[in-house]
Amino acid sequence: MKVDHIGVAVRRLSEAVPRWAALLGPAHGPPETVPSQGVRVAFLEAGDSEVELLEPTDAGSSVGRFLEHRGEGLHHVAFEVENVNRTLADLVARGEKVVDRMGRPGARGRIVGFAHPSAFGGVLVEFVERP
Amino acid sequence: MKVDHIGVAVRRLSEAVPRWAALLGPAHGPPETVPSQGVRVAFLEAGDSEVELLEPTDAGSSVGRFLEHRGEGLHHVAFEVENVNRTLADLVARGEKVVDRMGRPGARGRIVGFAHPSAFGGVLVEFVERP
Repeated sequence: MKVDHIGVAVRRLSEAVPRWAALLGPAHGPPETVPSQGVRVAFLEAGDSEVELLEPTDAGSSVGRFLEHRGEGLHHVAFEVENVNRTLADLVARGEKVVDRMGRPGARGRIVGFAHPSAFGGVLVEFVERP
Repeated sequence: MKVDHIGVAVRRLSEAVPRWAALLGPAHGPPETVPSQGVRVAFLEAGDSEVELLEPTDAGSSVGRFLEHRGEGLHHVAFEVENVNRTLADLVARGEKVVDRMGRPGARGRIVGFAHPSAFGGVLVEFVERP
C-alpha cells in the first residue's frame, strides 16, 4: 500500500511552497481549493509520492483547528487504495473509528476518506482512490 | 527526492506494530535499537517507502520529549538523498538551521541527518543516505 502523499498544515501557501520547492522542485500547477475540506492545497513531487501543503480557507476546518492548537507541521499521511469505501468498511469491521464512512471528493478528482486518529495511534490516515 | 520513510512516535512497539501491520503487512524483522537516537524502531513497507515506528528507550530523547508534549503521532518525514553531508551543507548555505551538521549512524547501517524543524515550517525532516 503505497504512500500517496504526506499532508503538511501551513499558514500560507505563498510562503510554504517556495520553501518546499527548494528541496523537492516546483509545485504541480497552481493551488487548488478543496471546498469539502476547507483548504487550498499545493502538491510537490517526492519520488513516487507527493507532499501536500494545506492552507485553511476556513479557520473552523480540520486544518484550521490543527494550526490553532499545534501550529504548522505534519498533518496526515495518505495511502493509495483500490477502493476507499471497502478500506473504511474494513476498519469499521475491526472495531476502529473512522471520520468518513464513505469516500468523498478530494483534490484532483480523487475519492478520499479519513480514518479517525485513534485507529492509528494518533496519526490521521487518509485513503485515496484514483478515478 | 523520494520519501524514504515516515516516522511515527509510539509509546509501545508491542501495541503499535500489530496496529500498523493490519494495514501494511508485517514489520521487516524484529525491532532495532538505535542508540544515537535513544529509540527502538520497527519498519513496515508502504510501497516504495516505509513507515518507521519509534519507541523511546530514553525519556529525554527527541522522541521521548515529543511523546510527553504532543502524544503519539507523526514525528518526522525522511527523504532519501545521495549525500547527507552535502544536503545539510546546502541547507546551512541557504541560511536554514540544522540539527546535524554532519550525517551520523541511523537504523540499518544508514547515514542520517536532521534539518531543524524551522527549515520546513515546523516539519522535522530527516535525510537518509544508503551505504
